[in-house]
Amino acid sequence: MQLNQQDLTGLDKEFRRAFINSLAGFRQAVLVGSISAEGKTNLAIFNSLIHLGANPALFGLINRPDTVPRDTLQNIQSTGFYSLNYVSGADYQKAHQTSARYPTGVSEFEQVGFEEVFHDGFAAPFVAGAIVQIAMKFEERIDIQRNGTVMIVGSIQEVRIDHSLVEADGFVNLSAAGVLVSQGLDAYFTASPLGRLPYAKP
Amino acid sequence: MQLNQQDLTGLDKEFRRAFINSLAGFRQAVLVGSISAEGKTNLAIFNSLIHLGANPALFGLINRPDTVPRDTLQNIQSTGFYSLNYVSGADYQKAHQTSARYPTGVSEFEQVGFEEVFHDGFAAPFVAGAIVQIAMKFEERIDIQRNGTVMIVGSIQEVRIDHSLVEADGFVNLSAAGVLVSQGLDAYFTASPLGRLPYAKP
Repeated sequence: MQLNQQDLTGLDKEFRRAFINSLAGFRQAVLVGSISAEGKTNLAIFNSLIHLGANPALFGLINRPDTVPRDTLQNIQSTGFYSLNYVSGADYQKAHQTSARYPTGVSEFEQVGFEEVFHDGFAAPFVAGAIVQIAMKFEERIDIQRNGTVMIVGSIQEVRIDHSLVEADGFVNLSAAGVLVSQGLDAYFTASPLGRLPYAKP
Repeated sequence: MQLNQQDLTGLDKEFRRAFINSLAGFRQAVLVGSISAEGKTNLAIFNSLIHLGANPALFGLINRPDTVPRDTLQNIQSTGFYSLNYVSGADYQKAHQTSARYPTGVSEFEQVGFEEVFHDGFAAPFVAGAIVQIAMKFEERIDIQRNGTVMIVGSIQEVRIDHSLVEADGFVNLSAAGVLVSQGLDAYFTASPLGRLPYAKP
């Protein structure tokens, strides 16, 4: 099957959205915890986390104004802090449910049944019991001219993870914990290991 | 286990690199095919593909000057075109081997044993037989000030995929084809489906 640019433009809008989103492949499912200036907590699933650098430790997050609740972006910019939470594959239905468009001010924590927890006075809430919990500080907003997409660049402030998942060389064994993986708008997976490989040399 | 910013800064450099890279979670493994102005082909594995939009269909790709061969970035900017190729989990060792630092002008296609193929006069080479083959046009380069990382924004020109993998609503069933998933610098996986869920409503 071959689709050129003209074919893509001619596709039904919903079909194209599902096709292009899922075509981008597998990604980490991440629940982003935030809080409004008025103190209302928010939790939203994203699948657009990007590693930008290890020192300083920076992650990016893509916000598409049309498909992702704006509450998260708004909260991150007004408070300067947010949390990244990875949950188990067993929680995929609850995780997906955070993508529903609840009215601003309604907390997805309560609505979908994840318990919120605050750590050490950090402004944003975390998902209690999440396998990975990362405290993030907003660093830079980048507007992508081509289509109005926004990238949020954040620095890692703190990482909480069970020490048994961190291997001797630093590798985080997320598949051993059954961490949730996503693809496209609505598909969920766990990862089955093929193996790790030594540093490649010519 | 709890690591704050100071702890991260104090880590051994190699440990931190493995830790932060793998902490970013699972991602699509993508082989980027390109060609130099002199006609030398290049193939490099990336795990930083991002969906930016469906109409126009735009994908981003993060280049970290320190860890990713500069040949790819150079080629994309000089020719304006590149290919994205997803391969089977069975090919994970060959895919990883493209990350070796071969001298500029040496083609990873030959070195690792993927066959290169050109389609319809499109400038950049593809991986013959790759499960997904996407022809991309360079649109915009975004420099992330915070750490010098570069995001390449590209538009999809053509998609080649077996029609049996595209479901009635447009979803691309990559897990059915055993498409390769990666994490961190050296870990490889396939995805095991939990399920797809209906559009979430409050």
